[in-house]
Formats: sequence, C-alpha cells, structure tokens
Amino acid sequence: MPSDNKNIARREFLTSIGRLAGSAAMLRTMAAMGIGFSAASCGSSSAAPGAAVLPPPPPRMQSPRPGDWPSNVGAGKSVVILGAGIAGMTSALEMNRLGYACTILEATAVAGGRNRTIRAGDSAVETDSTQDCTFDVDADLYFNPGPARISHHHEFLLGYCRQFGVALETFVNDNHAALLHATTAFGGQPQVKRRVVADTRGNIARLLAKAVNQNALDQDLSAADKTNILAMLQEFGDLNGAFEYTGTERAGFPGQENSGSRQRGELVSPLQLQELIGDTFWQLRQDYAQGLDQQPTMLQPVGGMDRIARAFESQVATDIVYEAVVSEIRKIANGVRIVYQDRFGTPVSLDADYCVCTIPATVLRSIANDFSSMHQSAIAGFNYAAAGKIGFQSRRFWEQDHNIYGGISWTTQDITQIWYPNHGFGRNSGILVGAYMFGGSAGSTFAAQSPQQRINASVTQGGRLHAEYAAEVARGISVAWLKVPFQLGAWGTSSPGILLSPDDNIFFAGEHLSLLQGWQEGAILSAYHAIDGIVARDTA
Amino acid sequence: MPSDNKNIARREFLTSIGRLAGSAAMLRTMAAMGIGFSAASCGSSSAAPGAAVLPPPPPRMQSPRPGDWPSNVGAGKSVVILGAGIAGMTSALEMNRLGYACTILEATAVAGGRNRTIRAGDSAVETDSTQDCTFDVDADLYFNPGPARISHHHEFLLGYCRQFGVALETFVNDNHAALLHATTAFGGQPQVKRRVVADTRGNIARLLAKAVNQNALDQDLSAADKTNILAMLQEFGDLNGAFEYTGTERAGFPGQENSGSRQRGELVSPLQLQELIGDTFWQLRQDYAQGLDQQPTMLQPVGGMDRIARAFESQVATDIVYEAVVSEIRKIANGVRIVYQDRFGTPVSLDADYCVCTIPATVLRSIANDFSSMHQSAIAGFNYAAAGKIGFQSRRFWEQDHNIYGGISWTTQDITQIWYPNHGFGRNSGILVGAYMFGGSAGSTFAAQSPQQRINASVTQGGRLHAEYAAEVARGISVAWLKVPFQLGAWGTSSPGILLSPDDNIFFAGEHLSLLQGWQEGAILSAYHAIDGIVARDTA
Repeated sequence: MPSDNKNIARREFLTSIGRLAGSAAMLRTMAAMGIGFSAASCGSSSAAPGAAVLPPPPPRMQSPRPGDWPSNVGAGKSVVILGAGIAGMTSALEMNRLGYACTILEATAVAGGRNRTIRAGDSAVETDSTQDCTFDVDADLYFNPGPARISHHHEFLLGYCRQFGVALETFVNDNHAALLHATTAFGGQPQVKRRVVADTRGNIARLLAKAVNQNALDQDLSAADKTNILAMLQEFGDLNGAFEYTGTERAGFPGQENSGSRQRGELVSPLQLQELIGDTFWQLRQDYAQGLDQQPTMLQPVGGMDRIARAFESQVATDIVYEAVVSEIRKIANGVRIVYQDRFGTPVSLDADYCVCTIPATVLRSIANDFSSMHQSAIAGFNYAAAGKIGFQSRRFWEQDHNIYGGISWTTQDITQIWYPNHGFGRNSGILVGAYMFGGSAGSTFAAQSPQQRINASVTQGGRLHAEYAAEVARGISVAWLKVPFQLGAWGTSSPGILLSPDDNIFFAGEHLSLLQGWQEGAILSAYHAIDGIVARDTA
Repeated sequence: MPSDNKNIARREFLTSIGRLAGSAAMLRTMAAMGIGFSAASCGSSSAAPGAAVLPPPPPRMQSPRPGDWPSNVGAGKSVVILGAGIAGMTSALEMNRLGYACTILEATAVAGGRNRTIRAGDSAVETDSTQDCTFDVDADLYFNPGPARISHHHEFLLGYCRQFGVALETFVNDNHAALLHATTAFGGQPQVKRRVVADTRGNIARLLAKAVNQNALDQDLSAADKTNILAMLQEFGDLNGAFEYTGTERAGFPGQENSGSRQRGELVSPLQLQELIGDTFWQLRQDYAQGLDQQPTMLQPVGGMDRIARAFESQVATDIVYEAVVSEIRKIANGVRIVYQDRFGTPVSLDADYCVCTIPATVLRSIANDFSSMHQSAIAGFNYAAAGKIGFQSRRFWEQDHNIYGGISWTTQDITQIWYPNHGFGRNSGILVGAYMFGGSAGSTFAAQSPQQRINASVTQGGRLHAEYAAEVARGISVAWLKVPFQLGAWGTSSPGILLSPDDNIFFAGEHLSLLQGWQEGAILSAYHAIDGIVARDTA
C-alpha cells in the first residue's frame, strides 16, 4: 500500500474510532501507536476502560500498595510465581516480606523478562534467528530493546530504584532539535521540531487572536478576558504587536542547526499552515510528550535499563529457579501444582498454596492448564503489540553535526522513530535506536524480516532523515518481540477483564493486566493487585 | 509595594514596552526577566538589536570562528588579556594557536570568572560579607551560582567540552511536575505545571475550534483547512468529540502527585480560564522553555559548571598571572601598557601589542585608562543585571514526596525560581537553588540583604510552594553578583554599541558584548569577535 494511502487509512481509522467511541477509545488507540497516553484498563480494577468519559467514581480510591497488608500474613503459606520479570520479582519481593515462601520459575537463564539491555557479546535470540552483538565494549554502548524510559510519577518503580540504589538520569523524550519527517509533506524533507512547534503555536495564536478581535467569541469572553487572552496569545505564539504571526526566533535561524551560524538577523520563513495541519502525522506527533506518562521529567537508569532487573534479582535471587520451562498449571485441593522441565529437561512437579502467573498470554495459551473456560478464553484472545527496535553503533553525528542531544525523531516510514542516546554526551560513539515501531503493519513487517533485512530497511529509511546515515551507522542488532521466546509480544493491548480475577488459587499479573500496559510500573501495579487478592484470602 | 500592585506595574511595564517598541524590545526585556529568549545585540556586529522586526539582512553571514584565521598570523606578536573568565581564556586559547604570545591577568586566585561552583569548604565573598559553605562533602552536592545550563545549540562551548573531555548530562529546564505559584491567583496555592499547561491548551483549542465551527475564520481557512485544524486542535487540547474541553488525563489525577494514587478514574477539574489568563505571570511563565536558548535539550557538566572553567584553565594555565589586579590601562605607540598590582601588592607594568579587555564594565569604569571618550561613556553607562541565587542542602523531599526530578518552579515572590537538582536522582540529599532572581527590585533587595536575611526570606517564600520547606532546607549560601568583587553584576544588559569596535589596540570582549548576553556561549562569541579584529589588523 503506498504510504499516502496508508496515512489516509490511519487518519480515517483514528477519526472513526474517535467518532464512534468517544475520546477514551481514541486515546487508547493512540497510546498503542505511541502517540498519546494510556487510558487503558486498571490493575486495581477500580477504574474501568474509558473512565474519562464516565461519571467520576468515588474519590481517592487507591491501588493496593505494600503498606496495606498486615505483616506476617503469609507465614506458613507458599507461592509459586511464574516468570522472573518485574511483575514476578515484585511479587516475590513483597510476599517474602509478608512471610510467604516464594519460588519463582523462570524459563530463561536470566531474570528481568522484557527488561533487557544488550551490550557487546550478548545475543538476541528469536524463534528463527540468533544475532550476536558486536558493539564495542564500553559502559555507554548499550541498547535497551524493551522498556527504556520511566515516567517521573511511576513512583513505585522509582521507589524501588531508591531502595536498591539504582542511579537514575534524565531521559530526553522531547528534544526540539530532533526531526519530524513525513514522506508526503514538505517535499519529503524532515523538519526540525522547534520549527514545527513554533509555527503551529504561532498559527493557533494568530487565528484565535483574530477571532477574539473580531468579537466572534464574545459569548465566551468578557472584555477583560479578551484583553488577557490576547496578552497570553501574544506570548504563546510569539505574535507581533498587531497579533500577526510573521515567524519567530523560537523556530531557529537559517542553517544554524547544521552549520553553527550565530547569525540571528534572518528568521526562517514560517511553514505553511496547510502543510502543518494537512496530515494526521503533523496533527498528532508534536503533542505526544503532553501525555501524562510522556511528560518531562522522564528518567532512565545510568548504565542500562537492566540495572533495575539486576537490582530486583539481587533481592530475590535465592527464590529463582532458572531455565525452568512450565509445561502444566494445575489446580489441586486448596492449592496449585506446577509441572516444569528443569535445565536438564527433567520434569519437576511443584505444589504451592498459591500461584502468581505472570507468563504473557501469548505464551500461556499454549501451556496445559486447568483454567476456567472464561479465563482460557480471555488468555486465548489477548492481543499484544508487535513492537520492535533496532540498535546501531555510530559516530555521534547527531551531536557533532546537528546539535541533537538525546530525544526522538519521528517519521511516517515503518521505522517510526529514531532515538538518540541520552547519556555519554560528547563522546565519539553512541548507540542509536534506528527503529521503534509499536505494532501494526510496520511491526509485523519488521518481525517477518530477517535481521539483515531489518538493518537494510532501517538504514534506507533513516537515510531520509539523516543523509549521512548509511555512512555512519553499523553493527545493527534488532529485537522483534513477537518472535522472542517466552515473550511472543511486546505488551498487552486487550482489556484485562476476567484476568483481574483469580481462578481458584491462581492469580494473574503482568503489565498487560494493569492501567499502565507496556510500562514497568504497570507490572508492579499488577503484582500489587495479585498480592492484594491473596492477602485478602489469608485475612478473610 | 504590595505584590499585587507590583504585578500590575510589571504587566503595564511589559505591555507598554510592547506597544511602544515592538516585539523585539519586549522580548529583550523578557529575556532580562528570564522569561523569553535573548534578542539582544550581537557579538558579531552583523545583527542589530530588534532584528526580528527589521527587513532581513543578507543571508548566511556568520560570526567569525577559529577556522577563519590564517595559521601563525600572530607570530612575534603579544597580547595581554584582562580577566581569566570564559572570554579571556577563549581568547588566549585561540590566539596561542595562531602564534600570539598571551598573558592573562586575573584579579582573583582562580580562573573562570562567573563560571563558579560552590562546594563544601568554599567561600562566597562579597564586598561586605564572607560566607563559608557547609554542605556535606559529596560529588553531587554543589551549587552553580552563575551559569548553570547550556543550550544544545551553543555549539562552540559544546565543541570545547568535547575537545577537553568535559562530560555533559541533561539539564531539565521544563519539568511538568514543577510548580507555578502566584500569591494573587488560585488562592495563593501553587499549581502543578502539567495542569496549567493542559488546561491552557484545552481552553485555547476549544475557543479556536468554536470560532472555526462558527465559520468566524472562513476568510482564512478553506473547508479542508477547517477539517484539518479541528483534528489538530482535538489532539492539541485533548478536546472531546464535540470539541469541548472537559479536562484531560494530561493534567494528572487528584492527589496523585502527592500520595502516589494510581487511581485514574477521576480527572482533576479544569482550572478556570479567567484565572489561567488573569495575570502576566500565568500569561508568560509557562512558555519560557519555548525560547530558542531555553528549549530542550539543555545540558550541564557532570559534577558542576566549573568543570568547564577547569578544562579551559588547564589549556592556558601557563599564561595566567593570578591575583593580578589591574590599576591602569594605557595606550602606547603601537601597543598597550597595563599596570597591575601583583599578589604582594607590588605594581608591575606590562607592555603588549594588543589588549583584549574582558573586565566587566561595572569594574572597568573605575580603572584608570586612556580610552576614547566614546568608549569611556559606553563603559560608564553599561547596565548589568542584579541577579542572585541561593543554594540549600536538603533531603530530596521534592523527589521523595512530590515526584519532582529536576526542573524549575516559578513564583511571583522575590525568589522568582526554585531549581531542583538535575543529577544524583534518588540519593537522599541534594542542593536546591532556593532563589534565582534576574534583577529588578527583587535582585536589588537580595543584594542589599545580609546572607542571613536572604536565607530567612528564601525559606519563608519557598514555604509557600512547599509546606515542608522550613523543616527541610538548611546550610543556605548565597551569591548576589552585584556585590561580588571584580564582577559587580551578573550580566550586561545594555547594547554593546561602540564597545564592539576597538579603541586603538585595545579590544573588548565578554558576554556583555555578544548576541547571547548572560551566556557562556556569548563570552566565546565575543572573544572570537575580538580575535577577528586583531587578526584583521595583522593580515591587513
């Protein structure tokens, strides 16, 4: 499908969702596309999907949290936790503190789940390929193929970082020196974000000022309001004294971003309003950092996202059985029985009072189980995003030649985003994320490609944003989550529904069963929800 | 003067400037107030003040830069440089490379000028007081009383950082979790920035959408434009399907910023438009990070701003004469004669072919000299900002209790800003900048206060933003630049005028003689301008 048709299809898709289902559904869809923020379902089960358009529920209901549970409630009780990702390790950590005897069965040889960092010598294993990472050995040269940023209000995760001494630094989510690129607009030339933002604000401000000055909004605005809103708009859009927008220093100066000119006499010409609003891409992409989970300040661990996985792991290491591949999840009287293959392929049976199952639904649906038909049906139908990323090592041409320090460029091409590293500024080499698509056809295409095909496509598409791309980027290594063993998807996108309710003594957790799907904080919230249910049983 | 009168006076002042002189003058004033961006005069002399409202000059004139100068042009020539700040050290560094024999006379015992970092054991000396810094000894516990952030496009400074191996990290200039506080609005309650931003955008979008839907802008917008701008506005302001603004998740959820609730069913109520626009403070303060020099990404050196001073110093250390207090600047045949008191108080006379004088005009005007009457007059009348800052050590209550990681809160009170540290996230203690005013009556008041009075006033005012303030912050140490020996001001605010032209063999430099007054990049640009003039003489 040509890309202009695809754009139109996407716009119509979004618009039709917006019309049919109200803003919440549209926001969910946009969140899945990485544009907006999540308004998805809630690990606490206290907020329904689409809550933004429903009457407000009783105020100040809070998700369960560790302080809610009586100490030692778990004494004499056992829990088997399936999966040593963030949800599983949080469950073990907090249930240990409550006195439960915890065992975590982890299918792979390393804890963390989708929290991973790839460095020199690591491998990226998919169901039909294995790639070796050939980055130089260097603390700054790493690639986070899964979660890579933390919202400043994801405070349970941040609290654990504080407890465990995980050093954090800023993640630049919204860099005004980064690029916005649509193949169908501005002659296919990428635009520096500052210019798009400044000209959009300028146009919004001038049009609203004009309407105000024409008395078109006198029903809404008093004379004092009009004076005040005009003053605000003048600053908001950098309008001149006649409330016209004729360009602004905010958009930068000609050639400055490339050649370093300090010439500030000549403004860049404002972009045409028609081009600034003529496509869904431009209508939406400059606003993503307004979303609640995308606003500054965002954070990342110093040295790679897996510093968090390692910190959790060090808290629960003695509870983890590695390379334990679950083959059966059974109900027994007052408890559960898990059968798994150990690292030697030997079947092992393990009984416990409770199970917290964090295995992704895409994997879980193939494991023999005693789940209720409702639970089985929800698991079978649970959708996951086909997200993927590719990392390249490169000279930091983006810093040295374009003054881009961290942040994200956007394109309508399949690669969707380019991420510049947010650390190691000023060093010669860095790891560029050369593609990050969130699913849809771009994600499916990426997953279907061989590693070399992904490299080739990413280099070609990246070259439309940065002319020097092919000459600079190298050593590409990619992860398509759809094909990662024991994950088979990037994050859950279906409504949690029945999976928020336990099935006898089996409780479910994982980011997909939270308000914050796709976020580590969501995994933690889901663990708290599961723990809360178990504690309720034991205090009943 | 009661603060409401002061606010009105300020608004009227700004408005009258805007009306009388056009946007450039207003922007300059706002830049001096730290609101907008600098449109001041230009170290390259190629852009006049107010350029934004003049016809564009010839395109692509560039400021001079090191690559412009012939190698070895300075062989056999000598230069005496007055002041080992960034302008003086840049001059020595680049002129050494061209073959000039350079001597820097520095009045104090340390290089860097206003580039300073205060740590445990340091002193803050003013003309009538000396404060000792009692912060704990810790690499993260430092206070930058002068420059503290670097724009990503200040590429000469960033280039030197790269050359010298100065590690950089992100400076968070615009944190949506920070606070905006006016004593006269919202009952004096500080507002979380995300809420002000989201509700302002929502109101702008709904009003413009209404005007568009009422066909009030049909002269400006085609039918297709209208459809597209409505789609854009829906996302811009997070409007509902009827283009109404009824609140948004972008504004956060009740209590979340304090108590960590993950409850997302109930939106916070939108703030009233009348309050959002009812005061210059609200009209202007949320937009400061749109300014070209204030946009993300902004940067800071890891470990304190003086890492840059130390790096420059290591390049030119053998050229610097410390504690050399200049008492006379004389013209001699084909050169200059400088008389200074050395560290023992002994007068020393030094002749050179050229002088690059970076001494601030506030200090220079009291030194005996042979300057032309035009130069003397410009130096005598040059205005400087009375900016000041105070640093406190504190538990990181802003992170632990309010999810504020770096960034800036604003208030209408004299302290003007509170800066949260942008590094050491998650540690227990941090250095808070408890006041940063840019001049005006707040700066004069601050300078006139004793160090203890500044602490008392800052704690009282800060307590109106953070209730725990008085219980948490301690060990205050302040710098009022107006009273710092050999500086006597924070940055120049007058037009450079004649000082861009040499006075016989004396050339002037310093941030005050640049397009970027108050920025280190401006100091570098001014040095390049002076060097360019000297090189022109030697290649004539």
